[in-house]
Amino acid sequence: MRGRLGAVAARGRKAKAFLHSSSATSLLGPNLPDVWTVATSSSRSTSSANCGPAQQRPAKILDGNLMAREIRSGIACEVCRVRERLGKSPGLAIVVVGQRKDSHTFVQVKMKACEEVGISTFVKELSEGCSQEELFGVVSRLNRDSSVHGIIVQLPLPQELDEERIIDIVNPAKDVDGFHPMNMGNLAMRGREPFFIPCAPKSCIELLLRSGVEIMGKRAVVVGRSKIVGLPISLLLQRHHATVSTVHAFTKNPDQITREADIVVADVGIPNIVRGSWLKAGAVVVDMGTTQVEELTPDGRKKYRIMGDVCYEEAVEVASAITPVPGGVGPVTISMLLSNTLDSAKRAIKVS
Amino acid sequence: MRGRLGAVAARGRKAKAFLHSSSATSLLGPNLPDVWTVATSSSRSTSSANCGPAQQRPAKILDGNLMAREIRSGIACEVCRVRERLGKSPGLAIVVVGQRKDSHTFVQVKMKACEEVGISTFVKELSEGCSQEELFGVVSRLNRDSSVHGIIVQLPLPQELDEERIIDIVNPAKDVDGFHPMNMGNLAMRGREPFFIPCAPKSCIELLLRSGVEIMGKRAVVVGRSKIVGLPISLLLQRHHATVSTVHAFTKNPDQITREADIVVADVGIPNIVRGSWLKAGAVVVDMGTTQVEELTPDGRKKYRIMGDVCYEEAVEVASAITPVPGGVGPVTISMLLSNTLDSAKRAIKVS
Repeated sequence: MRGRLGAVAARGRKAKAFLHSSSATSLLGPNLPDVWTVATSSSRSTSSANCGPAQQRPAKILDGNLMAREIRSGIACEVCRVRERLGKSPGLAIVVVGQRKDSHTFVQVKMKACEEVGISTFVKELSEGCSQEELFGVVSRLNRDSSVHGIIVQLPLPQELDEERIIDIVNPAKDVDGFHPMNMGNLAMRGREPFFIPCAPKSCIELLLRSGVEIMGKRAVVVGRSKIVGLPISLLLQRHHATVSTVHAFTKNPDQITREADIVVADVGIPNIVRGSWLKAGAVVVDMGTTQVEELTPDGRKKYRIMGDVCYEEAVEVASAITPVPGGVGPVTISMLLSNTLDSAKRAIKVS
Repeated sequence: MRGRLGAVAARGRKAKAFLHSSSATSLLGPNLPDVWTVATSSSRSTSSANCGPAQQRPAKILDGNLMAREIRSGIACEVCRVRERLGKSPGLAIVVVGQRKDSHTFVQVKMKACEEVGISTFVKELSEGCSQEELFGVVSRLNRDSSVHGIIVQLPLPQELDEERIIDIVNPAKDVDGFHPMNMGNLAMRGREPFFIPCAPKSCIELLLRSGVEIMGKRAVVVGRSKIVGLPISLLLQRHHATVSTVHAFTKNPDQITREADIVVADVGIPNIVRGSWLKAGAVVVDMGTTQVEELTPDGRKKYRIMGDVCYEEAVEVASAITPVPGGVGPVTISMLLSNTLDSAKRAIKVS
């Protein structure tokens, strides 16, 4: 049962601006509506007529929850073996500054996932007003701490802190988020290997590979080019020898270009921006979007739900396979963080 | 007067493999000929009938020599000003290992260009059999030397030396070639700025911008994805808000995808691979290819000439603008090296 969809509540400076300001339209090109109205379930069912040739049956659902359970079960076994050789559990340090509720929720989710597979966590909480030097000091100590195999600085940081400079001082060999430019550069450059691949992009590829989707030689379109998701996904798909096009706010005909793709990855942060009509029949669709949307229940109460970038009800009729939101890349992403931390601990064994 | 075009003589492990081995064909997809025969001038003129709709007049030639002269003249003036404030000339160190004739020729060209604009050069020659540690030592001393604002390690290095590890120890703030993964990562990540952009990719964009070619919102296809040219060009075009597709050896229909582009950049290292029929009428074409081809003169003597990746005689009838080879991006690339070295010296003034 779905209530009226209201304003975008989170993730979304970009989403908000787009939904509420017609001046933002130019950023997205002339082929998009002036004011984007998030589709309701009834409008969705009628608009599915705009889709490309319908599949014989709805798309295969790429179940991230199931895949995450399988991956984590494997990781838990490996953690046991690593612990024996290392004499201690692999360790993940999470640095969180201030009291943002969403940040603390994410930290809790990560801690719980670590606990489940036997990875130790060390959470360093700093106050909202902490100085750059104080944060540098904490990260530097974690860089030197041999119990810590992975370091995450939970983003976003308070505006007074220079996010880039802080990411730059994380030891690239412990940068399990894969956000350090050294890791990103090594990901971009063929023939080189980063210590870590960012978790969400890695989960996208993992999901495709585990679902038996062939990437080599396929045309892939990545809708969105954020530096921590869209960009590294483009780089990864190219590493797997797809022919990649990146569609973004300045692209004049995003629907037309996306319709050429065998694999579509959406990471824009605007609910439902990728319509069924944007897809070639039989395309594989990975939805990286996770926008928190406020809804009103029939009895007038507010509730929130997570929405993807792909108009699921339309897409499921056109695509051959699709990730749901939630329950698609999200759970796999957390598994990739565990996997990165495990990999780092394994490297520590080889070094020691 | 053009003689018979023979074997590809240089640049060309890839070009050679493709020209001489039919097994390499699969790497380039089914739409390319099994054995690529480099077109002669007569076959070119007839095959131009395969091109897209002809332009009213041949394409505008983007003259790299002229542009390079303008840029260098500006750099020479700036070097004078920087020298006054710095108390010495900006300095470029070039490390060259072994006796490869082409490497030494490139070093001579770079030294001459530096001299013309007043940049000092320091050439460090090491013997073919030098050890990794010896080379590390030389680079480390240059990293610390305040007279040196830019460091180039002339590639390729002898196979015994680990090219990646040596590039990694160049101080990113002196890496005027822009090959350090830290610089490449910062180039890839929007909102970040690398110390340096690799010279050939920078020259491609410089050439487009100085020729008044609008990049924002245009469809660009980069044919080739080498880590030091094709990849950073894709990243740069995207920084300028083009919608970029990268075509490579695993792309099934490179001609079709390339024909969608307003801007085509070719960096494959195979002469004439981009035919006139690959281009949309009015496209802007930048040819990064520089393959040395052996020719026989009518009296049977060998001579060499540089050939681009684009079948010029065909393309010039379809494109709205095109760079010739030689005399296109080549001279501008050297200017970008001078520009990077100058920028580094300017930063040194700000720091001191």
